[in-house]
Amino acid sequence: MSVVVANRDELRQRIQQLLAADLISVNALLHRQFRNPNMFVQDVALHVSRFRGKQIRPILALLSAHLFHPTSPARENVHRLAAVVEMIHTATLVHDDVIDDASLRRHVSTVHRRWNTETSVLFGDYLLSKAFHLAATTGDAEACRLIGLATDRTCEGELNQIAARLEQSTSERDYFRVVGGKTGQLFAVSCLLGSRAAGGSTPHQRQLRQFGMRIGLAFQIADDVLDLTEATETTGKDASNDLANHRLTLPLIRALRLGSDQDQQRLRNLLTSSDGDDLARLRDEPIVRQGVESAHSTAEHFVRRALRNLESLPSCPAREILALIAQFAIQRTA
Amino acid sequence: MSVVVANRDELRQRIQQLLAADLISVNALLHRQFRNPNMFVQDVALHVSRFRGKQIRPILALLSAHLFHPTSPARENVHRLAAVVEMIHTATLVHDDVIDDASLRRHVSTVHRRWNTETSVLFGDYLLSKAFHLAATTGDAEACRLIGLATDRTCEGELNQIAARLEQSTSERDYFRVVGGKTGQLFAVSCLLGSRAAGGSTPHQRQLRQFGMRIGLAFQIADDVLDLTEATETTGKDASNDLANHRLTLPLIRALRLGSDQDQQRLRNLLTSSDGDDLARLRDEPIVRQGVESAHSTAEHFVRRALRNLESLPSCPAREILALIAQFAIQRTA
Repeated sequence: MSVVVANRDELRQRIQQLLAADLISVNALLHRQFRNPNMFVQDVALHVSRFRGKQIRPILALLSAHLFHPTSPARENVHRLAAVVEMIHTATLVHDDVIDDASLRRHVSTVHRRWNTETSVLFGDYLLSKAFHLAATTGDAEACRLIGLATDRTCEGELNQIAARLEQSTSERDYFRVVGGKTGQLFAVSCLLGSRAAGGSTPHQRQLRQFGMRIGLAFQIADDVLDLTEATETTGKDASNDLANHRLTLPLIRALRLGSDQDQQRLRNLLTSSDGDDLARLRDEPIVRQGVESAHSTAEHFVRRALRNLESLPSCPAREILALIAQFAIQRTA
Repeated sequence: MSVVVANRDELRQRIQQLLAADLISVNALLHRQFRNPNMFVQDVALHVSRFRGKQIRPILALLSAHLFHPTSPARENVHRLAAVVEMIHTATLVHDDVIDDASLRRHVSTVHRRWNTETSVLFGDYLLSKAFHLAATTGDAEACRLIGLATDRTCEGELNQIAARLEQSTSERDYFRVVGGKTGQLFAVSCLLGSRAAGGSTPHQRQLRQFGMRIGLAFQIADDVLDLTEATETTGKDASNDLANHRLTLPLIRALRLGSDQDQQRLRNLLTSSDGDDLARLRDEPIVRQGVESAHSTAEHFVRRALRNLESLPSCPAREILALIAQFAIQRTA
């Protein structure tokens, strides 16, 4: 299935039309999670709330629930689980910023720059713990188990990324294992939990879980392309975190495969350089541009397959919006 | 109640006599949690397993369960929950080492020294996630909620510690808020979860939870005294992490209160110094020795109150061992 809208603003409007009340509930819940007598904890929580972006994960959970028209108390549980996936995502952002020694996140200082590494590490742990705690308040141990499993695999994806870098792996299999874990799992479980809490059938839950995984992969590939091609002003993050941290992403893996022996050697030299100019030069290499195109068409392939997952689901506005999100997933701007 | 044994070895023997089979199950469970196709993840897990110490938290959970003679499947759930509290504790150790930039833990390199900060942060997250996941496999959402709540408060305790340091707080109220969170909560929930899973009554669960909190406080005070007075060889950790990180612990707070104005000023100068010799000199200050004694007698007070919590519980070997653990909690060696 495929639905067309004029632009991203129209997509935002349609999401607001359908989910306004739900998003207010989810954000109120997120806000309440960090009301704390300690001013310091409050301050950090307020700062971190400014990292909040498009909230794609909670929106996926809410839309996946809407397909099955949940009523109270299922609806309250959907809201809680939507807040849970957003909190887990935010925890990974806070910890990723320490790991990458990043300075900016959505045009705002990262936590370890604003305070220190200690605060970042502990506040990320606090977010994770609060997320699991909130999940448990649904009284649904199976939902807790699914979240635990997804978060395990998210961490495994990130640990696999270290291993791939240490081994200087240029294997696509390693790349997909990493991004399937670190991005795909949380997208997948967001769709799964939303549909499950709203009473979707097991086959429908399975389709939505796979839909989430596929757009997660597409989204991450688009993000890796963006990291390589865009400047700080657009992304609100530091330029080329991946390059600076010697992470080989899909566009570069494809470039290495597409280039001649000579191209490959030149590319490898630029990649191992720690000189910022060399890294900038790398972007202008013709084979890197080819790698970017090749990666982009793989992202499109995942979007097409994700759209197919929607076909058996009830036809309704929520399904249309899910299709639009899939299509926009690879037209990324920060 | 009070029970006397000759020495720590005798305590270890009694624990082994009663819990040998349970501890084998718990350790097998911990081992299985980290079997992973990725060699890198396995390597880090194996390294971290060498941080394993006396396993006081799982032992508290097992003893609190033994009081109520659990049979299958409650017993399997007790084992899982005992493994969960150990994993959460290990996660906090791995992250604390990054925060303190520590080199040694139980005479072994810390994770960020052996690998890097990235590995430490992610592996700590992985441990936390795996712990919550394992908790959810009990099918008991209320147990998950209690663990979430305890871990929230553990993190809040650690975040409060940063706030107290930034404000250079010398308040005992702040100190107890910090240690009640960062150490007390996990001890308390270990006892609570063990007794709850084994079918202990609500009043018995409450007594055990309070027992755990009190020996947690006593244990942490003893640890703070040890950090101030002992050398690296004994503890297997870096000497005086607290001092090096300008954390004001109970013996120092008491020293500041007990000393004359002149003493206080000298102490404050030594405390704010970053010179290692000054920090060593601080230990030999007479008012610091007085502070150590005063802190130690507070730890004894908590032990006495903890022993009172045991009085209403069924009289049995598990209760005797809990009493012994309370008494040994403040005779700390690493």
